[in-house]
Amino acid sequence: MIYLDTDYMAGAHPEVLAALNKTNMQHTPGYGDDEFTSLAEKKILEACNIPDGKVFFLVGGTQTNATVIDRILDRNDGVIAADTSHINVHEAGAIEAWGHKILTLPNHDGKLRANEIRDFIAEFYNDETYPHMVRPGMVYISFSTELGTIYSKSELLDIRKVCDEFNIPLYADGARLAYGLNAVGCDITLPELANICDVFYIGGTKCGTLFGEAVVTRHPDLLPRFISVMKLHGALLAKGRLLGIQFLTLFTDGLYDRIGKYGVELAMELKNLLLSKGFRQFINSPTNQQFFELPNPVIEKLRENVSFELWGAPGDKASKVRFVTSWSTPSNLISELEKYL
Amino acid sequence: MIYLDTDYMAGAHPEVLAALNKTNMQHTPGYGDDEFTSLAEKKILEACNIPDGKVFFLVGGTQTNATVIDRILDRNDGVIAADTSHINVHEAGAIEAWGHKILTLPNHDGKLRANEIRDFIAEFYNDETYPHMVRPGMVYISFSTELGTIYSKSELLDIRKVCDEFNIPLYADGARLAYGLNAVGCDITLPELANICDVFYIGGTKCGTLFGEAVVTRHPDLLPRFISVMKLHGALLAKGRLLGIQFLTLFTDGLYDRIGKYGVELAMELKNLLLSKGFRQFINSPTNQQFFELPNPVIEKLRENVSFELWGAPGDKASKVRFVTSWSTPSNLISELEKYL
Amino acid sequence: MIYLDTDYMAGAHPEVLAALNKTNMQHTPGYGDDEFTSLAEKKILEACNIPDGKVFFLVGGTQTNATVIDRILDRNDGVIAADTSHINVHEAGAIEAWGHKILTLPNHDGKLRANEIRDFIAEFYNDETYPHMVRPGMVYISFSTELGTIYSKSELLDIRKVCDEFNIPLYADGARLAYGLNAVGCDITLPELANICDVFYIGGTKCGTLFGEAVVTRHPDLLPRFISVMKLHGALLAKGRLLGIQFLTLFTDGLYDRIGKYGVELAMELKNLLLSKGFRQFINSPTNQQFFELPNPVIEKLRENVSFELWGAPGDKASKVRFVTSWSTPSNLISELEKYL
Amino acid sequence: MIYLDTDYMAGAHPEVLAALNKTNMQHTPGYGDDEFTSLAEKKILEACNIPDGKVFFLVGGTQTNATVIDRILDRNDGVIAADTSHINVHEAGAIEAWGHKILTLPNHDGKLRANEIRDFIAEFYNDETYPHMVRPGMVYISFSTELGTIYSKSELLDIRKVCDEFNIPLYADGARLAYGLNAVGCDITLPELANICDVFYIGGTKCGTLFGEAVVTRHPDLLPRFISVMKLHGALLAKGRLLGIQFLTLFTDGLYDRIGKYGVELAMELKNLLLSKGFRQFINSPTNQQFFELPNPVIEKLRENVSFELWGAPGDKASKVRFVTSWSTPSNLISELEKYL
Repeated sequence: MIYLDTDYMAGAHPEVLAALNKTNMQHTPGYGDDEFTSLAEKKILEACNIPDGKVFFLVGGTQTNATVIDRILDRNDGVIAADTSHINVHEAGAIEAWGHKILTLPNHDGKLRANEIRDFIAEFYNDETYPHMVRPGMVYISFSTELGTIYSKSELLDIRKVCDEFNIPLYADGARLAYGLNAVGCDITLPELANICDVFYIGGTKCGTLFGEAVVTRHPDLLPRFISVMKLHGALLAKGRLLGIQFLTLFTDGLYDRIGKYGVELAMELKNLLLSKGFRQFINSPTNQQFFELPNPVIEKLRENVSFELWGAPGDKASKVRFVTSWSTPSNLISELEKYL
Repeated sequence: MIYLDTDYMAGAHPEVLAALNKTNMQHTPGYGDDEFTSLAEKKILEACNIPDGKVFFLVGGTQTNATVIDRILDRNDGVIAADTSHINVHEAGAIEAWGHKILTLPNHDGKLRANEIRDFIAEFYNDETYPHMVRPGMVYISFSTELGTIYSKSELLDIRKVCDEFNIPLYADGARLAYGLNAVGCDITLPELANICDVFYIGGTKCGTLFGEAVVTRHPDLLPRFISVMKLHGALLAKGRLLGIQFLTLFTDGLYDRIGKYGVELAMELKNLLLSKGFRQFINSPTNQQFFELPNPVIEKLRENVSFELWGAPGDKASKVRFVTSWSTPSNLISELEKYL
Repeated sequence: MIYLDTDYMAGAHPEVLAALNKTNMQHTPGYGDDEFTSLAEKKILEACNIPDGKVFFLVGGTQTNATVIDRILDRNDGVIAADTSHINVHEAGAIEAWGHKILTLPNHDGKLRANEIRDFIAEFYNDETYPHMVRPGMVYISFSTELGTIYSKSELLDIRKVCDEFNIPLYADGARLAYGLNAVGCDITLPELANICDVFYIGGTKCGTLFGEAVVTRHPDLLPRFISVMKLHGALLAKGRLLGIQFLTLFTDGLYDRIGKYGVELAMELKNLLLSKGFRQFINSPTNQQFFELPNPVIEKLRENVSFELWGAPGDKASKVRFVTSWSTPSNLISELEKYL
Repeated sequence: MIYLDTDYMAGAHPEVLAALNKTNMQHTPGYGDDEFTSLAEKKILEACNIPDGKVFFLVGGTQTNATVIDRILDRNDGVIAADTSHINVHEAGAIEAWGHKILTLPNHDGKLRANEIRDFIAEFYNDETYPHMVRPGMVYISFSTELGTIYSKSELLDIRKVCDEFNIPLYADGARLAYGLNAVGCDITLPELANICDVFYIGGTKCGTLFGEAVVTRHPDLLPRFISVMKLHGALLAKGRLLGIQFLTLFTDGLYDRIGKYGVELAMELKNLLLSKGFRQFINSPTNQQFFELPNPVIEKLRENVSFELWGAPGDKASKVRFVTSWSTPSNLISELEKYL
């Protein structure tokens, strides 16, 4: 069976696991006060070219989003996000649970548009009743998005400009950052992203680690007393060094990029295969998620050997499906798929 | 100057104020443990024809919505509401502040539609990832709505049916209930409303009292330990008898209905006057709020003697405005308006 | 029957009610954007001698405490308070409901001691694990306290000094401020209090109004965007002018002081009467609350004509009781009491 | 260097790590919908002898406490706990952050006493103002406690009885459960504990896993829709099978007990060594935490080769220290210690 359901179905990348094995019996202080964590932070800040920045390591994506957003927003602020965004749809209300409204804007293939953000905020301040409304306090984007798409550099700079106009922070959810930065046509680098966003996180769970997300900021003042806030959110791992060790490995010998490239390459081969067979993609994604509409008999046959998700409710004759590759997808994916199509 | 900005610009209806004056020097226990409050509850339950129900008196609308919704919803539940609803737009995030997402559906002249509620909830349960999503835990409507419209009895019964299908409560915000129930064409009575909704509130602030909203339920089990939850929300008035006295007066000699009728009658005269002058109403409201588009010079001239709100940003040649009548609008409204139009 | 249960059993002081009557049919903007409210703020700032300060009007005490404390504290901060304090005992968990721990210290006749506050905070910062602990973020006191006692000026200045050492705000709950400032032996004035505290509130509910508490601060920066936060807390009264009118009256012709003096004078006469009869006071209170232990038969007889509260569980032969006077206590209190003792 | 600071300084027990290695490249569904997790649950329920129970796997202790307590308590409920308890002191306010007060009782060597719990709850219900107070909604204990002590079976049954009298759940924090159940003189078994408590958790982080705590309940109704609530708390691990694999290993071949026994045996040898040298223990702990007062020169010398924590501020001549053993403490601990004492 080949698993293309999602990108968190296997354990850790072998190099990451090896590092955990190698260090297992060492004793270190807890909560990230260890050498591995310090080194991992240093490596990440170098990779991002923000030497005065700060890195915090958390366990999972929902937890990271809730903790960062809760920390940044003032009591009556909300976060602007696409209606399709993970925080709006698939985090069980974790943002609202900490008291904050998500101010949704329509998505365009999963993305926000700078001018729509500007109009929304301007309209807020133009409304005389705005003290009775939720103030837009930050912008949340994801890179890549829920629909596998990525922002171009110019799109990001446009959003940055809006954030500067209204003096609110820009935060990027990088759960699939490795696959985003290595997407076909991506014209932005990690240091560029790190300098456009105020805060973002480098996803580990879907990109090679057992678990873990690295929050990066070039503005440490935006996250004051963040260790205490992480603790309060239940997001401070006792054996913090496990996060340090894993991210240190991801940022050694270019592993994070290798993982991203590998996943995307397989995804492009999969895309080409399906297009060559005449199937229709309903979203044109340059990353590790691929979205196709397949005839139901094709789906049925394929499912005998390949595991993947329906995207929404099944159709009468054809249905929408999603295929997700990752570092753990077998390299003989295409030859295997060809057998079952 | 005539004030048509909104319906909470004057003090209390003279009969209500007289009752406060008359009882002022009496000493009673606090927090609603007094005879006036008991009597007011009794009167309201009689008027609603739900003898086994329960009434709780709170101070203001946002507070009431936040307290009731917070009490009804389970931890990971959200409340279905129209995108234009007061809780979604003008309560500064009070619902989210207590941890709950508002699940918005598109409004139709301010109203929800039963079939769209049904589809939304059905889609939730059909999605395999629903444990990662916010569960629809109740339905919020308002009567009348933000746009001055009212639900017909059949529309309400359709929504009731959906609530029964999914076993979730229906809650109605009655900030302007007096004007809703006395609207032109309203085919529903207070007892009918009380038996269709699980919980609703009878608005006082906009309908004759200094302040105060009466939460009514035929299912006291839906609001367990509600006094403690009110206290925790800062919503339990020390001199609770003030609420009792005011609502007792509203439900004596049909005052609540008289107030509603008076406000609506003036609103209809105002509507007819403006229509007769050839002005366009952009919403056809049968209640005390009237929505017209007027040429800017007309607006300018009118404003010298009449106070009212623009509805949104001004237009180039004409702008949208809202006029609101109430029990405190002077009875010579029309003759005065005619002078300035 | 004479009512000495508590100080919020009657309506409003006649002068306050007269002002409400006089202004009842005027139309004004809502939410405190009216002239009465502006004037009341001006009067209060003059009375406090903090011309650059700011005043916000809320409805009730628990609501005020929750809103102010929630606004001042950062996410992982707690508030230092006496174990007997109102927020710790009788607000149904309203402070915690907004996410904040109450850090209790032992009370001394209802009061905190400066050196114990200092030791507590110092211990916090000396503990290496302090990022895992709740940071002391402000100090809450009440004036007068739950036990009817008041702080001396030197006690307050000592607490102020501790707050300055650790750079945290001092907040005073003034639910009974009129009776506190007019207590026997009180050596502090309203302007002094206003300049020692960072934020405090002037209680209306127990001191002459129907309802209402005026939050005063000489540091408006401590309460940024407070109107929005009040709205989010359900604490922004629609007919805000009702608060303005009432507080304007309280601060006209010295009414607030007259109310305080009257209540305290009756309390002292009551105290003297009971002491002269040989009864024991278990707290020596200089304010409008008096705490006595009375033989059970005395209590029984007295209760035929006087209403008051037991303080805790009844004893075998004697029980503790509390008597509370106020502006609404009849002036013939003592001659009446003498009949029934 | 020997590390006795705490019990989460190394990685995972070698058997646990081996299982993670062995399964690393397998693909499984996420969020605990995998076979390993099902098997782990089955094994744990068998070990607890509660076949109809339910197990949920979370990542860390603070997160687990916050999620369980938040799920069990009603809006205005608080949790009874010892003043020294982890939730009260070292979780940065995580319980309050979710809206709940901790109702503290004095500890007796870290433990609550049944009669003091009973008195506290009885006093609550006897107070006429109890609707204005925080209702005691559950009891929190830890096994072993922060001070290394354990409850006897009879002490637990007494607490159980109080919980039954007032119909509130009993919850045990088992962060160090392996060392508690294998303590010297422990007269209770895992099945007994599982049947006395309503909910408890089996600690992994300190007892052999990289991370992870297993919440166990014989009353699944107490934790309705718990997966959604975990998600909302940021406590649902994407690669849930990592928790399943680790706990499956802990409950295979008696590993959990072996870990507990090993840690306690070393602790007892350490205790005997220190007592034989004439040092004073200030708490007599039968578990893996040992508390001694040592002369400062002894501490200084020892610290050259042994790492451990001061317990509170250092003294003039002698200071209090804590030694903690675990599965990862080297077996030659005593011979090494003897060299440096």
